[in-house]
Amino acid sequence: MAKYTIGVDFGTLSGRAVLVSLETGEEIATAVYDYPHKVMETALPCGKPLEKNSALQHPKDYTDALSHSVQEVMKISGINPEDVIGIGIDFTACTMFPVDDNGVPLCYQEKWASEPQAYVKLWKHHAAQAEADEITAMAKKEGKNWLERYGGKISSEWLFPKMLETIHKCPEVYHEATRFMEAGDWLTWLLTGKEIHSSCMAGYKGNWHHKEGYPDNEFLTKLHPDFDGVVGTKVSENVLPAGTLAGYLTEDSAAMLGLCPGTAVSVPLIDAFAALPAADVTGSGKLMLVIGTSSCHILLSEKEQDVPGICGVVKDGAVAGFYSYEAGQACVGDHFAWFMDKCLPAEEKAQAEKEGKSVYALMREKAEKLSPGESGIIALDWWNGNRTPYVDANLSGVFLGMSLTTRPEELYRALIEATAYGTKQIINTYEKGGVPTGEIIACGGIAEKDPFTMQIYADVCGRNIRVCASPQAGALGSAMHASVASGYYKNLSDAAKVMAKLKDVVYTPIPEHTAVYEKLYAEYITLAEYFTKENQVMKRLMELRK
Amino acid sequence: MAKYTIGVDFGTLSGRAVLVSLETGEEIATAVYDYPHKVMETALPCGKPLEKNSALQHPKDYTDALSHSVQEVMKISGINPEDVIGIGIDFTACTMFPVDDNGVPLCYQEKWASEPQAYVKLWKHHAAQAEADEITAMAKKEGKNWLERYGGKISSEWLFPKMLETIHKCPEVYHEATRFMEAGDWLTWLLTGKEIHSSCMAGYKGNWHHKEGYPDNEFLTKLHPDFDGVVGTKVSENVLPAGTLAGYLTEDSAAMLGLCPGTAVSVPLIDAFAALPAADVTGSGKLMLVIGTSSCHILLSEKEQDVPGICGVVKDGAVAGFYSYEAGQACVGDHFAWFMDKCLPAEEKAQAEKEGKSVYALMREKAEKLSPGESGIIALDWWNGNRTPYVDANLSGVFLGMSLTTRPEELYRALIEATAYGTKQIINTYEKGGVPTGEIIACGGIAEKDPFTMQIYADVCGRNIRVCASPQAGALGSAMHASVASGYYKNLSDAAKVMAKLKDVVYTPIPEHTAVYEKLYAEYITLAEYFTKENQVMKRLMELRK
Repeated sequence: MAKYTIGVDFGTLSGRAVLVSLETGEEIATAVYDYPHKVMETALPCGKPLEKNSALQHPKDYTDALSHSVQEVMKISGINPEDVIGIGIDFTACTMFPVDDNGVPLCYQEKWASEPQAYVKLWKHHAAQAEADEITAMAKKEGKNWLERYGGKISSEWLFPKMLETIHKCPEVYHEATRFMEAGDWLTWLLTGKEIHSSCMAGYKGNWHHKEGYPDNEFLTKLHPDFDGVVGTKVSENVLPAGTLAGYLTEDSAAMLGLCPGTAVSVPLIDAFAALPAADVTGSGKLMLVIGTSSCHILLSEKEQDVPGICGVVKDGAVAGFYSYEAGQACVGDHFAWFMDKCLPAEEKAQAEKEGKSVYALMREKAEKLSPGESGIIALDWWNGNRTPYVDANLSGVFLGMSLTTRPEELYRALIEATAYGTKQIINTYEKGGVPTGEIIACGGIAEKDPFTMQIYADVCGRNIRVCASPQAGALGSAMHASVASGYYKNLSDAAKVMAKLKDVVYTPIPEHTAVYEKLYAEYITLAEYFTKENQVMKRLMELRK
Repeated sequence: MAKYTIGVDFGTLSGRAVLVSLETGEEIATAVYDYPHKVMETALPCGKPLEKNSALQHPKDYTDALSHSVQEVMKISGINPEDVIGIGIDFTACTMFPVDDNGVPLCYQEKWASEPQAYVKLWKHHAAQAEADEITAMAKKEGKNWLERYGGKISSEWLFPKMLETIHKCPEVYHEATRFMEAGDWLTWLLTGKEIHSSCMAGYKGNWHHKEGYPDNEFLTKLHPDFDGVVGTKVSENVLPAGTLAGYLTEDSAAMLGLCPGTAVSVPLIDAFAALPAADVTGSGKLMLVIGTSSCHILLSEKEQDVPGICGVVKDGAVAGFYSYEAGQACVGDHFAWFMDKCLPAEEKAQAEKEGKSVYALMREKAEKLSPGESGIIALDWWNGNRTPYVDANLSGVFLGMSLTTRPEELYRALIEATAYGTKQIINTYEKGGVPTGEIIACGGIAEKDPFTMQIYADVCGRNIRVCASPQAGALGSAMHASVASGYYKNLSDAAKVMAKLKDVVYTPIPEHTAVYEKLYAEYITLAEYFTKENQVMKRLMELRK
C-alpha cells in the first residue's frame, strides 16, 4: 500500500505544503497559503504604529496556513488520510512570541491586541540591536567562552535579545508569558499536544549547547534581574533532536488538517537546514551551499570539533546523530544588486532594455566572454563585512587592478569571482579544521538560475557542483524527516535514496580555468590576510566615517 | 615708447599668437590658426593609409599658423612693427621630422610625398613602441646609468625611438635626412637663419644631459649600425638654454610675419614648460602644477641633485640658469572621465539631463556634500600606472572601503582625493630630496574650472594654491621669454612682476579637513608602499592578462 508524508515549509510570507510519495519520491501535490497579515513593519492591525526596524507577524496566519495548505494537498491528491503517515514542518527562525499556559499567543487576548511585544517577532525583526549589543558586551566582560561559538557576537535576530527587548519595552507582557516560543515549536505543540524545543532552533538561535545548555542563570540575571530563573520556565529545556519523532496528531489537530489522529509528527527545523536531505545531504562528506542575497555553507560531521573560523556547531542541528556546522558569507547576491544599482552605466542599461533582457542577463553575457584573469581585476567580497572565517562586520569591499580600459562587465565578473573565492576559503577552513567537504550541492535562486556563476564556482573551488532539483527543498526535506519519524524509512539516508532530487547537470571544473583561479585565489588570500592582520585600514576608515 | 613682444604657442591642433605689452603685461591681441591637416591618423593627404597608432602632421601647417597668427595680432592691435621687439615660440614635443641641408622638410619633395616617415611625427605618435622597448632593453643590458634619469624606461614619444622607427621602416628617408628636428627648433631656424636645439626639448625628449650629452655612439651603434655618427650630424649638438636669445628675424622671415628684421627671437620651449613665467614661477620655491588628463609638477632649483623618485632633471630646462625638475601623475582627469563613462549609473545621468547640467557638475554637487572621510573609501590613483615616484606603468587602480550603501559620488570623490594624495606624495618626494616646493601654482583645465577639486587639493596638501589667470599661459610665457631675450627685462623674474597673471582667489587649507586628510594620506602611503614593495599583486595580475 502506497504511503505518503507531508512537509510544510513556513517562509517569510507564506506557508507551503507538499505531499510526497514515500515509494517514489514523487511530489504529488503542492499548496501555498499567503499570510494575510504579511510582515507588519509600520503598524499593528489596530493601527498602532511600530517603531523602526520592526518586523512582526500574526500567529493566526501560521495556523491558517497550516490547515489550509494541508487540506488543499489532501484535496488535490485525493489520497486516503490513512495513507499519510507523517507530517513535518520547517520554519524561519528565530521567529518567536510569548504564549500562555495553554500555548495561546498573548496577542490573542483583547488586552494585548495593541501591544507590539505580544506579537510574533519575525526572524528579521531588528529592533533589538541595543539588547544584542548589551548581551555581547556582557559576555565579553564576563569572559564567557561560549561567545566564541557565535564568532564573538550575538545577533539581534536571536532569542535572548528579542526577549530582553520585551523586558525593556513591555515588562507586563514578559511577566505574563509562560513561554517564549519559536513558531515552529509552537505549531508542533499544537499538532501533538506536547511541548518540545527543536535542537536546530535552540542551538542556532537560542545559544543552547547540547552539553552546556543555555547561558547560566548568573549571567542572565546580570543582564536583567527579570531573567532570573528564565531557563526551564519561559525558555523550554526540553530540547529534542531536529527531525526525530516529536509526537502524534491529536484528535483536534487531525480534524483541523483532515488527517488521522496518531499520525507521526517530526521535530521542526529551520528552513535552510530542512533543505539538506532534499539535496541528498544526509551525512558527512557533502557541502550544502545555499546561495542567495547572502550564502550559508552547512556541513555534517560525526564529530564535534573546534574549527577555527567556523561559528555555529550544533549537535542534531540539521540531521539527528550528526553535528552540523554552519559557515556563511554575509553578502553574495547583494553584491550584484549593489553593482547593478550603483555602478551600471546608462549605456548598458539602455542596451539591456533595447535587447529586451534583464541587466543581469546582459552583464552575464558580456562577462562570460572574458577568460579567467583577463580583466586583471580582483575583488574582496566584503561589502557587508565577512562572516566566515573573519567574523567581522567592519571589513569592507575592495576592487583592485583597474585601468582606463576597464569595463563594467570586468568589475561584475570580479565580484562574482570574489564570492567564489570566499566560498573556497570556507571550504579550505573546514578542511584545515579536519571536516572533509567533498562534493558541493547548491540550492537557492542563484544556484537554480545562473549557470554562469555556478561554473565559476566549480572552476574556482575545483569541485563538482550539483544543484537541488526541487523548487521546494524545505518542504520536501520536512516530508523526508517525517518519513523517518514515522518509521517508514530507517534513516534519512535511506529516505534520500528515493526522495532526494538533484538536477542532472553537474558543474565540472574546467582544468585551464581552475589553474588560473588557483593563482587568483592565492592573491585573494594574501590580500584577505593582509587586510585582517597587518593593515587594519578598513577598521580605521570605518572609525573615520563616524 | 611702449614696447611689445609676441608669443606663439603651438598645440596639437592649432597655433595661437598673443601680442603683449611689456609695460603693462596687457594681452593686447590674440589670434588662433587651426592646422588644415589636423592630425593624420589614418591616411596621408595623398590617400596612403597609415599604420595603427600613427599621429602625423604637415609642417606647412606650422609655417602657415605662424605667419597667419602673427600677421593677425599685428593687424588687430595696429601696433607699429618697430615696437615689437621680440618673438618667442613654444611647441609640443617631441614633434619631429627629417629635413634637408636647407632645413626643407623631406615631405615637401615629390618623391617622399607618400612616405609616412617623411612627415612630422606628432608627440603622440605611438608607432615606435617596439623601438622604445628595444632602446630600454639595450640600455639595461649595457648598464647605462642614464636610464635612471628617465625612470628606467624610454618613452615611444621621444626622439631616438622615432628615429629608429624611420631606420626600420624607411631607411632611405633616414639616410637622405640631414637633420631630424623638433618642430619648435625648426621654426626658430626659419625665423633666425641659425640652427639651434632647445635645451628644454633636447633634455626632456632627446636623452641629452648638459654634462654627458646624448647617449654615446657605441651604444647607439649597437642599437643600429645606421646610428653610427648620428650625434652631431642628424641630431644637433648646438643646444642652447631655453628662452635665451636664439638670434634675430631675417629679412625673409620678418617679411613673412610683418615684423622688422633684427627682432629678437628666443630659444623655444615645450608648451607645458613655457607656461611657468606666465604663472609667476620664475625661480625656486614654487611648484607649478599643470592639471589635465594627466598632471605634471615642475619645480625650479639652483642645484642639480638626485631626487629619488623624480625623473627628468634638465639644466636650463624651463628657465635659463635653473635646473628644472619634472614629476608627473600618469592619469588625473582621465580617471574622472573613466568614472563618468564606465561607472556612472543611469539614474545619475538622467538626473543631470533633467537638471540641465553636466554629469561632472551633478557629481561634484553631490560629492561636495560629503565630509572628508565620510565615505570610508580610499583609492589608489593608478588607473594608468604611476609615474612619480614609482615610475611603473604596470601598477593599477584600487578602490577600498565599499559597503552596500556606497553611492557613486563617494567613489567619485575618492578618486579626486586619490589624485590629490598623489600630488602630495610628489611634493613630499621633492621635499625629502631637498628641493623645497613652497606655494602651489596651478594651471590647466581642472585648475581653472573646478574649485571643488582645487579645494580638496589645498586641504590634502595643506598648502595654499593659486591659479594662473591667463587662458593662454603658454603663449604669454613665450612672449615673456622674448621680453628677456630682447633685453627689455633683465630676467624673467623682473618680467613676471609686470606680465605674470594669477587669479585673485587663493585656495586655503581648511584645518579640520587637513587633519582628516593627514590620516587618509597616511593610509594611502601605506597601501602605495605595500603594493609597490611587499605585494606585487598588480604586476602578477598584469602578467595574467597577457
